[in-house]
Amino acid sequence: MSSQHITPRQFQDFSDHRDPVAAAPRLAGLRKRLKALGVDGFIIPRADEHQNEYVPACEERLAWLTGFAGSAGTAIVLSDKAAIFVDGRYTLQVVDDVDISLFAPQKLAEISPEAWLSAHLTEGARFGYDPWLHTSGQVKRLEAAVKKAKAQLVALTPNPLDALWKDRPAAPAGMMVPQPARLAGLSVPQKLKIIRAGLPDATSLIISDPHNLCWAFNLRGADVAHTPLALAYAHIPPTGRPTLFCEAAKVSPALTRALHGLVDIAPPSALPALLQQAGEQEAALRFDSATAAEALVSAFQGAGGKADVGQDPVTLLKATKTQAELAGMRRAHRRDGVAMVHFLCWFDKAVRSGSLTEIDAARALEASRRKTGRLRDISFPTISAAGPHAAIPHYRVSEASNLTITPGLFLIDSGAQYQDGTTDITRTIAVGRPTPAMRDCFTRVLQGHIAIASAVFPAGTSGAQIDALARLQLWRKGLDFDHGTGHGVGAYLSVHEGPQRISKMGHVALEAGMILSNEPGYYRAGEFGIRIENLVVVKKVSIKNAERPMLGFETLSFAPIDLRAISPALLARDEIDWLNNYHAMVRKKLLPLVDKNAKTWLLAATAPLLD
Amino acid sequence: MSSQHITPRQFQDFSDHRDPVAAAPRLAGLRKRLKALGVDGFIIPRADEHQNEYVPACEERLAWLTGFAGSAGTAIVLSDKAAIFVDGRYTLQVVDDVDISLFAPQKLAEISPEAWLSAHLTEGARFGYDPWLHTSGQVKRLEAAVKKAKAQLVALTPNPLDALWKDRPAAPAGMMVPQPARLAGLSVPQKLKIIRAGLPDATSLIISDPHNLCWAFNLRGADVAHTPLALAYAHIPPTGRPTLFCEAAKVSPALTRALHGLVDIAPPSALPALLQQAGEQEAALRFDSATAAEALVSAFQGAGGKADVGQDPVTLLKATKTQAELAGMRRAHRRDGVAMVHFLCWFDKAVRSGSLTEIDAARALEASRRKTGRLRDISFPTISAAGPHAAIPHYRVSEASNLTITPGLFLIDSGAQYQDGTTDITRTIAVGRPTPAMRDCFTRVLQGHIAIASAVFPAGTSGAQIDALARLQLWRKGLDFDHGTGHGVGAYLSVHEGPQRISKMGHVALEAGMILSNEPGYYRAGEFGIRIENLVVVKKVSIKNAERPMLGFETLSFAPIDLRAISPALLARDEIDWLNNYHAMVRKKLLPLVDKNAKTWLLAATAPLLD
Repeated sequence: MSSQHITPRQFQDFSDHRDPVAAAPRLAGLRKRLKALGVDGFIIPRADEHQNEYVPACEERLAWLTGFAGSAGTAIVLSDKAAIFVDGRYTLQVVDDVDISLFAPQKLAEISPEAWLSAHLTEGARFGYDPWLHTSGQVKRLEAAVKKAKAQLVALTPNPLDALWKDRPAAPAGMMVPQPARLAGLSVPQKLKIIRAGLPDATSLIISDPHNLCWAFNLRGADVAHTPLALAYAHIPPTGRPTLFCEAAKVSPALTRALHGLVDIAPPSALPALLQQAGEQEAALRFDSATAAEALVSAFQGAGGKADVGQDPVTLLKATKTQAELAGMRRAHRRDGVAMVHFLCWFDKAVRSGSLTEIDAARALEASRRKTGRLRDISFPTISAAGPHAAIPHYRVSEASNLTITPGLFLIDSGAQYQDGTTDITRTIAVGRPTPAMRDCFTRVLQGHIAIASAVFPAGTSGAQIDALARLQLWRKGLDFDHGTGHGVGAYLSVHEGPQRISKMGHVALEAGMILSNEPGYYRAGEFGIRIENLVVVKKVSIKNAERPMLGFETLSFAPIDLRAISPALLARDEIDWLNNYHAMVRKKLLPLVDKNAKTWLLAATAPLLD
Repeated sequence: MSSQHITPRQFQDFSDHRDPVAAAPRLAGLRKRLKALGVDGFIIPRADEHQNEYVPACEERLAWLTGFAGSAGTAIVLSDKAAIFVDGRYTLQVVDDVDISLFAPQKLAEISPEAWLSAHLTEGARFGYDPWLHTSGQVKRLEAAVKKAKAQLVALTPNPLDALWKDRPAAPAGMMVPQPARLAGLSVPQKLKIIRAGLPDATSLIISDPHNLCWAFNLRGADVAHTPLALAYAHIPPTGRPTLFCEAAKVSPALTRALHGLVDIAPPSALPALLQQAGEQEAALRFDSATAAEALVSAFQGAGGKADVGQDPVTLLKATKTQAELAGMRRAHRRDGVAMVHFLCWFDKAVRSGSLTEIDAARALEASRRKTGRLRDISFPTISAAGPHAAIPHYRVSEASNLTITPGLFLIDSGAQYQDGTTDITRTIAVGRPTPAMRDCFTRVLQGHIAIASAVFPAGTSGAQIDALARLQLWRKGLDFDHGTGHGVGAYLSVHEGPQRISKMGHVALEAGMILSNEPGYYRAGEFGIRIENLVVVKKVSIKNAERPMLGFETLSFAPIDLRAISPALLARDEIDWLNNYHAMVRKKLLPLVDKNAKTWLLAATAPLLD
């Protein structure tokens, strides 16, 4: 563990931040302030200046205003009504978190914030947004929606909410440290070369995505929970030294040494000046359409520049891992597998007491990972979900919600950040004897997991084309799940990374070296939930007499899948073979590394399932 | 058969239209003419004014100029170079059809005509197009490509090629006849009501797609081969009588009676005047983005109108068939199945002579369909393909290409137009004993066919999401096929109909009543080709305890699938069950209707395959 990192006793926080009583006065305060500013409405996305999924505490405006604690959502406040928009993962949670008499919950699958705005804004109204919290593409869509209602869109800086937020946390000042080239697999000069090759001639790049910044400069930060991000910007000119825009105090001596002579460091306040100057010179400047704030793009355009808003080439480069990153991910997953086995073995015994709670389980799993001596953080708040809580795909346990784990199914979705890799794994555990319905559904989810794990497909195939494989056995019974089958994962970076995904929306071709989750599920609201998740890496597959270059997956995660939750009669021969081979591999990788108690447990948990 | 239809002795034409010697002088002539017009290049799409797939002979400009006889393609002629762009179906054929020293063949999967234009047009050049042969969307893309090369796009009317085409056929004057409401399932007033419900308030519709026109007004025409289209336009105002723009001489007395008091008829020359007037009045006018020629849109916009270029609501309405249309399609497919069985029985005997040719087979199949006494046309030129010809997915047999059918696999893809329905069916037939490789591939294609036929999926699922099911068993061996798994099919309309399709590009949700083909294939260039095609209709599927509304397919086509081409060991139990159930159904439907000879053959061809 680097000495620059201050390690809390527990990464996960179980306190209940929600304060529904606070929402009414805060909403009233915001409306008053908007009125004073002469605007009739305001949009509050869950976003920071970099469009991060995990944002620093000082950027949790949506949670402060509405109480909604999910990782994605948007509120719109008008003078006489307000709404909150969430996706399928959060339709149950939003009702719990938010005072729905103040914010009418809306499903994103049914209505977009833009469509709602067009329908509810009154003619001639002035509608505000914070240009640091929206990309220029998002602003264009807002503009069209507002225009449709014959209203006017107004940029508001500073954000009008900030003045009301009396105890707003300070901006993060996490230390930035080098990520060794032996783990990254490519040096900074090598990375600059391939980044520049992905840009049009004579075009500079503004890096606004902190993940891309960390990757490009082989560094990691500590500005947000669970992801080693440095919230900063960079400018990469076509030739010569790039500039990193961040407070000098955040740059560790080791990073200063690592970047010496390669990269200039400048304060964040120098970025607007650079954009201004580049705009005046009409320089060719690429902004990342996915993360560059409208405020950046308009600073450049306001000075006369014509922005090239497109893809940051780092996004795709980062997605296909280097051999060193893959080796690190394999080590990290083996280490994490040991922690999982110790936890699962402990759980089976501890749950028999009848008093084990969701928080107990989450604490024990974090402790087990801590025992590796290498844990830098958990990669997201552990979803420790008993009974009906497991039917909420992104359930977050708090002291207030904490359930005792009773017979049925228990779902635990968790991950770790090690310096050599990021993990993300879900197991659904039989507590006592699950019902036949639970076992039937568990087996169908497992069949979906196996179908993805063993899929073989031609190069050029997208995640959208194979997503259905994870659903076929559920579909046969008229069942489904409302999330994608898999998301991309970074290497000691974010546990959610694009552009690769296995989902009907995943139209990017899968490429060798991309890491994804394989996590089909099934959720019966109010009763139980199931998810079986391993990480996989896309690999080349060699087949005799193949006419096309073919790809498939190597499974990275190692931990037993609960045999007690399976209905073996549903499984086909090749599915049983996959499961037995997987368990043989789990045993081979982990048996030498687990403690004595766990050895007996692991042997039983990975015993072959007979046909 | 309606008396207005003149029936040729044979619908299929086996003559070789190609005249590669003609291409050089024609190309030289076109270049000379372009020079005289002061333009440096010209684009020749295979399109008519309605963006039809089957175009009348007078619109076959691409074939006249280049010799290319495929159903989709584009040529670009510049002063010093020319290229022809085709998709994966035609990459083999284009080399046969076209003098590639004149037209460099380009694969659409690798380069678009627009990208090629941007790369090859010289700065300051003037590049021409015919505004009747491109939609406004296509013109926008052309414009961007030409602009990128700092050149200029110029509309050319009349088409400069037409003056060179000395023996150009006359415009078609096929008679328009009513399609009885008992077959259509909805009367014209009922259809007008649902069409208008699909448009914004007070918006008129210009129907430019002849398929949509036929559907909306319950009529059929005879302007192109194989599809009962009437090449005409219509205007549907928000209230009051629609106008059909066509030559009065094309309207049969029966249609005149059927539309009396419902629809006004006006000459085609009245359409520009209507667009001009609507433009001046700034009327709300919807043009179909998929088929409305730029010339129509610009006539309206030139007069001051702001065109609403979007979806013609008829496209989706037409795709979900009425109960009457479905009943008609089922009757048509049973009738067509009898013709197929008579043909297949004859083929098995005739092929033993060793002298049977591709043309003999195509003639015999058309004759067998003619014997039904109800054949209005074949639905497309039969693909009768022996040996390596079957590896060309859209092979068209001519006197010049005609092969004798030798041992191996023979592929025949054909269809019929009956007044109650359109059919499209492919069978791949074992001639002698196919090789193990052929049988292995045939079985994998069959497994793909079965996976689609028996798929169950939630409402809202698109064809893109299930397309891979047809490929999984091929992928396992490193094989694939380069076309979609299925296209939409009309009811006594075009054999290729949108928007529904089963393909990675098919993002429209499948809905009950949509008809599609299910036609996975496999093609080994220079050796053999396999395709197994039935039509299917999307139907609701009821499952006990289902949590979602579920859909699946009902197979419409009935004809044996060749058991002699199967490797039974590859099939799973449920695949054998599907095949045996399908063959039991074929026998039940067709045995009472086939002649004596064929009864014995049919019993053997549909014998159950044992596990």
